[in-house]
Amino acid sequence: MSRSAYPEHLRALVEEFLGGLTFGPRGPMDRLGEAMRYSLLAGGKRVRPVLTLAVVESLGRPPSPALPTAAALELIHTYSLIHDDLPAIDDDDLRRGKPTCHVVFGEDVAILAGDGLFAEAFSLVADHQDSAAELKVALLGELARATGVGGMVGGQYIDITSSEAASVDLRQMHALKTGKLIEAAVVCGALLGGVGPDGLPAYRTFAAELGVLFQIVDDILDVVGSDEQLGKTAGKDHQAGKVTYVSRFGLERARELADQAVARAEASLAELPGDTAGLRAVTAYLAGRER
Amino acid sequence: MSRSAYPEHLRALVEEFLGGLTFGPRGPMDRLGEAMRYSLLAGGKRVRPVLTLAVVESLGRPPSPALPTAAALELIHTYSLIHDDLPAIDDDDLRRGKPTCHVVFGEDVAILAGDGLFAEAFSLVADHQDSAAELKVALLGELARATGVGGMVGGQYIDITSSEAASVDLRQMHALKTGKLIEAAVVCGALLGGVGPDGLPAYRTFAAELGVLFQIVDDILDVVGSDEQLGKTAGKDHQAGKVTYVSRFGLERARELADQAVARAEASLAELPGDTAGLRAVTAYLAGRER
Repeated sequence: MSRSAYPEHLRALVEEFLGGLTFGPRGPMDRLGEAMRYSLLAGGKRVRPVLTLAVVESLGRPPSPALPTAAALELIHTYSLIHDDLPAIDDDDLRRGKPTCHVVFGEDVAILAGDGLFAEAFSLVADHQDSAAELKVALLGELARATGVGGMVGGQYIDITSSEAASVDLRQMHALKTGKLIEAAVVCGALLGGVGPDGLPAYRTFAAELGVLFQIVDDILDVVGSDEQLGKTAGKDHQAGKVTYVSRFGLERARELADQAVARAEASLAELPGDTAGLRAVTAYLAGRER
Repeated sequence: MSRSAYPEHLRALVEEFLGGLTFGPRGPMDRLGEAMRYSLLAGGKRVRPVLTLAVVESLGRPPSPALPTAAALELIHTYSLIHDDLPAIDDDDLRRGKPTCHVVFGEDVAILAGDGLFAEAFSLVADHQDSAAELKVALLGELARATGVGGMVGGQYIDITSSEAASVDLRQMHALKTGKLIEAAVVCGALLGGVGPDGLPAYRTFAAELGVLFQIVDDILDVVGSDEQLGKTAGKDHQAGKVTYVSRFGLERARELADQAVARAEASLAELPGDTAGLRAVTAYLAGRER
C-alpha cells in the first residue's frame, strides 16, 4: 500500500468546525460546555469524521455540507472516551496527552459532559445537517444503532467484563465497541454522498475490515507504544489483564493479523466506486501508525 | 380542579410496550440489557409517556401508534435517573422502592446502562415510529434538544453545583432539568397528533406550567414524604443542602406556589384544542400526589 498522505485538508475542516461549536445558551452551565469542549478539542486524527468526509469526497461531492454529521461522530467518540476513562470503568488519567475529563472537572461533571456530547451529536444532525428528511432519519438511525446495545455500548460492556471471560469473542467485542462507530462514519458518508440501499453493503464491508485493522493496531500500540507516543497510559489493557489481540496471539502473530487486515481492507476498498484515494490514505495511516 | 382518575389505560399501554422491549442481539451483553430493563421496569406512573399519549388522544387519534416515541421518553427519563443516582452524582441507593441500578449491577454497568437506554431511545423513534420522515426528524430533534446542554443535562449540571450557588435560579434549573423532558413529552404528542408549528406554543406553555408544578411538589415531597411513600430516600435534597422550593421559600409558601402553578396549568390547558380530560387528570395527579 502506498504511503499516501493523511487527508489533512479534511481534518482541518473538521477541526475548524468543532472549534466553532458551542453547547447550550450562556449561563450557569457554561462550565459544563467547557468540559465538553476540553475533551472534544484535545486533538487527535479525527479518524471518524475524516472517514465520513473522505467517503463524501470520493463520490465527487464537496465535503463541507457533511460537516454537522461528521462532527456528530466525533462528539459521540469523545463522549465514549470520557465515560470509558471514568474511575468506575477504565480509570484512566491521561487521554490524547492531557489529563482526562474527570481529572480536570470532577467525576460528576465528566459523566454529564459525556451525556451532553451524546445529546448534542443528535441535535447536530437533526437541526444542522442540511439534507432531506428521509436522509436525516437514515443518518440518525445509523448513529443510534451504532451506539446502542448492538453497537458501542454493548461492546464496551463485553470489554469491561472480558477479563473474567477467557472465552470472549475478540472480533465480536471490537466489531461492536469500535467497529460499529467506524462503520457508521463510513455509511453516513455514503448516505450523504447519495449512495442508495443497494450500494451500502460494500461500504459496510470496507468499514468492518478497517475496524478490525484499527483494533489490532490499537492492541499492539498498547504494548509497544510509550505514554508520550499514545497520549494515553501505555500498557493499560495489558496490566488490567484484558483480552487483546496481543494477549491472545502474541505480538508477532498480532502483527501478521494486522497485515492480513490491511490486505482485506485494500481488497474491499477496491470494490467501492469513485476516487478512493482519500480512503486509501486513511487506511494506510491506520495500518502504519505504530511503525 | 376535579379529581378525575389518572389515565390508567394509557399507563397500561406504556407498561405493556416497555415490558416487551429487548435491547440488542442475544449474546455476551445480555446482562447489560438486564440492567437496563431492571431500571426501566421498576414501575412508576409513567408520567412522560402518558402525557405523550394523552395529548395524542386529546386530538382524536388512537394512542397506540405513538408508543415508540412515548416509550423513548421513558427510556430517556430512566437513563437520567440511573446517572443521577450514581455515587459520583447524587449517590442514591433507593429508587422507585428498589435498590438503584449501580447497587445491583455495579457502577460501571450502571453508567453503560444509562448510555444504552439513551441510544436505544433514539433507535425507537428512528426505526420503530411509523411516521413520515419530516415528523420523525421533528421528534428526534425535540428529544435531542430536550436532553442536551440547553435541557436536561444542563439543568442537572446546575443542580449538582447549586449548593455552592445561593443565587441559583430555581425556575431556570428546573425548567431545564425536568421541565424540558416534560415539554418534549407534550410536544411529541402534539406533533404525533398532527399539530403544526403554529399550534405548538400553546402546548409548550402548558408543559412549562406542568413542569413547574411537578418540581414544586417534588421538593415538598422530599421534606414531607417518607422513603416508603416516595420509593426513594426522603429528605435527600434537604440533607445535601440543595436549593429547593422549600429551602428557599419554606413549606407553607411552597404549597402556595404549588397552588398557583396548578391554577396556571389549568388556565393554559383551557387554551388547548380537543378533549383534554386525560391531560386534566394527569395535571390533577401531579398536583395531588403529596396530599
